[in-house]
Amino acid sequence: MSFKVHQDVAVCGGRLLKLCHFSQVIGRMMDVNVYVPKQYYSQADSKMIPAVYYLSGLTCSPQNASEKAYWPFQADKYGFAVVFPDTSPRGDDIPSDPEGFWDFGIGAGFYVNATQKPYDEHYQMYDYIHKELPTSLDEYFANGRLDFVDNVAITGHSMGGFGALAGFLKNYDANRYKSCSAFAPIVNPTKVPWGKKAFGEYLGPNEQAWKEYDPCELVKKVRNRGNDRILIHQGTKDPFLESNLKPELLLEASKGTSWEGKIDLKLVDGFDHSYYFVSTFVPEHAAFHAKNLGLT
Amino acid sequence: MSFKVHQDVAVCGGRLLKLCHFSQVIGRMMDVNVYVPKQYYSQADSKMIPAVYYLSGLTCSPQNASEKAYWPFQADKYGFAVVFPDTSPRGDDIPSDPEGFWDFGIGAGFYVNATQKPYDEHYQMYDYIHKELPTSLDEYFANGRLDFVDNVAITGHSMGGFGALAGFLKNYDANRYKSCSAFAPIVNPTKVPWGKKAFGEYLGPNEQAWKEYDPCELVKKVRNRGNDRILIHQGTKDPFLESNLKPELLLEASKGTSWEGKIDLKLVDGFDHSYYFVSTFVPEHAAFHAKNLGLT
Repeated sequence: MSFKVHQDVAVCGGRLLKLCHFSQVIGRMMDVNVYVPKQYYSQADSKMIPAVYYLSGLTCSPQNASEKAYWPFQADKYGFAVVFPDTSPRGDDIPSDPEGFWDFGIGAGFYVNATQKPYDEHYQMYDYIHKELPTSLDEYFANGRLDFVDNVAITGHSMGGFGALAGFLKNYDANRYKSCSAFAPIVNPTKVPWGKKAFGEYLGPNEQAWKEYDPCELVKKVRNRGNDRILIHQGTKDPFLESNLKPELLLEASKGTSWEGKIDLKLVDGFDHSYYFVSTFVPEHAAFHAKNLGLT
Repeated sequence: MSFKVHQDVAVCGGRLLKLCHFSQVIGRMMDVNVYVPKQYYSQADSKMIPAVYYLSGLTCSPQNASEKAYWPFQADKYGFAVVFPDTSPRGDDIPSDPEGFWDFGIGAGFYVNATQKPYDEHYQMYDYIHKELPTSLDEYFANGRLDFVDNVAITGHSMGGFGALAGFLKNYDANRYKSCSAFAPIVNPTKVPWGKKAFGEYLGPNEQAWKEYDPCELVKKVRNRGNDRILIHQGTKDPFLESNLKPELLLEASKGTSWEGKIDLKLVDGFDHSYYFVSTFVPEHAAFHAKNLGLT
């Protein structure tokens, strides 16, 4: 599957590639941005370059985090690429929230494989993010320096923080991601309004199917291999903290499991839900992933 | 003149204050953002905190650079505040480009005092930026730790780069700004389409009035006191480079003047006109201003 380059933008020491490609599992063209760090362009450097996947939150396209989360300086510092996928299929013919709300449908694919009509035809975001996109990127950058499949990490913000946690845990036994972190994630989607609405529409009324994606359920099923840790930042002035995020529920769920004490939840005083919050803590997440990816 | 706080946002170690106030010279409410660095909130720290004024380019509000230029980490590193003023008066009753173009009128005040009707009533951006705003901020933050008047620097992007250069040079003999830099500035507004259009409408047909604001004229009139330098970055892939920016004209104009050899024009390969370019070089500008403000 090939990519078309919309824009190739100089940022820091590398390039932000604004790409699009036809996704087989989604059945539509999908936008994706990739920041390729300076190490890739250095003749002198021949080390493999791992990738960090950054899953965005509700309403976001690949542009929001590319412009505002400020990963490039960190990517150059450690030598990793950053992948900014879209949050859903898009287009006039793509079914979306019937009442036009922003918390479901276009811009709100929730990184699951929809099983319910009319969403099941295109909303296959789980397979897209964790299977098709990495393989396609690996094929596209076929010079062997960039690794989008084997030595990779995953993170995300809000709905994307949920997507990162669920994707990491669901693929943990296959050792798919070396590292996982999240910014203000939805940790218990089966119990909060955003999650219940999206899961009900995408996955249907059977709540057993919802649990397959819920980080608070997954920590009970998936066995931590040893000392793997998950890093989470959460602002105390986040307007969605009490209604939809509730990160303490993940700590509670992990009690008595192999993940107990392995989830580093950092409540940061005064921070909200915006990219001002995300960008502030990107350096700490970058250092965490760089270490787990063997870069430091 | 007092300010109203629209939003008080945690960013890095400090706060981004989204303010508005009634400007006497503009005759309208004006938005302005101020990043107050972490040093201000530290009990242990009692050093005076200088300010860097960042003048934005065409179409921008105070939000664009606040979100995308990524000054806060640098401001915290050195201990300076950053002021993000608006680019014009705004409102349904404010006269703007009759044909709705984005290069003149609202979002395009060009940091001059308009003398021509109907613009002269509200477009008094020069007096606003260089006189009223600093004084008002100094009064508002009246605890004596933040300095918006005496130890300050100025920078800007594109139209704002022009505004910074003109403001610095016009106030040079009064020692108003300790330091000046610019990102992809319009250096010779009397000779390029953006400048000719705006100056014609704001200042009228007499080109002698235009020259009072033109950096290429001002370097011939204002005498460098000694070793003061101006830092300019310009991307080589900037789509406006040949039509409206032409930074080489400032170097040519400075030949044989006291500014010859004192303008550090850095052409940076492959960079465009966006905030990806600006944010990449903000650390270098921050270091430059920090030194001139006595912080390093």
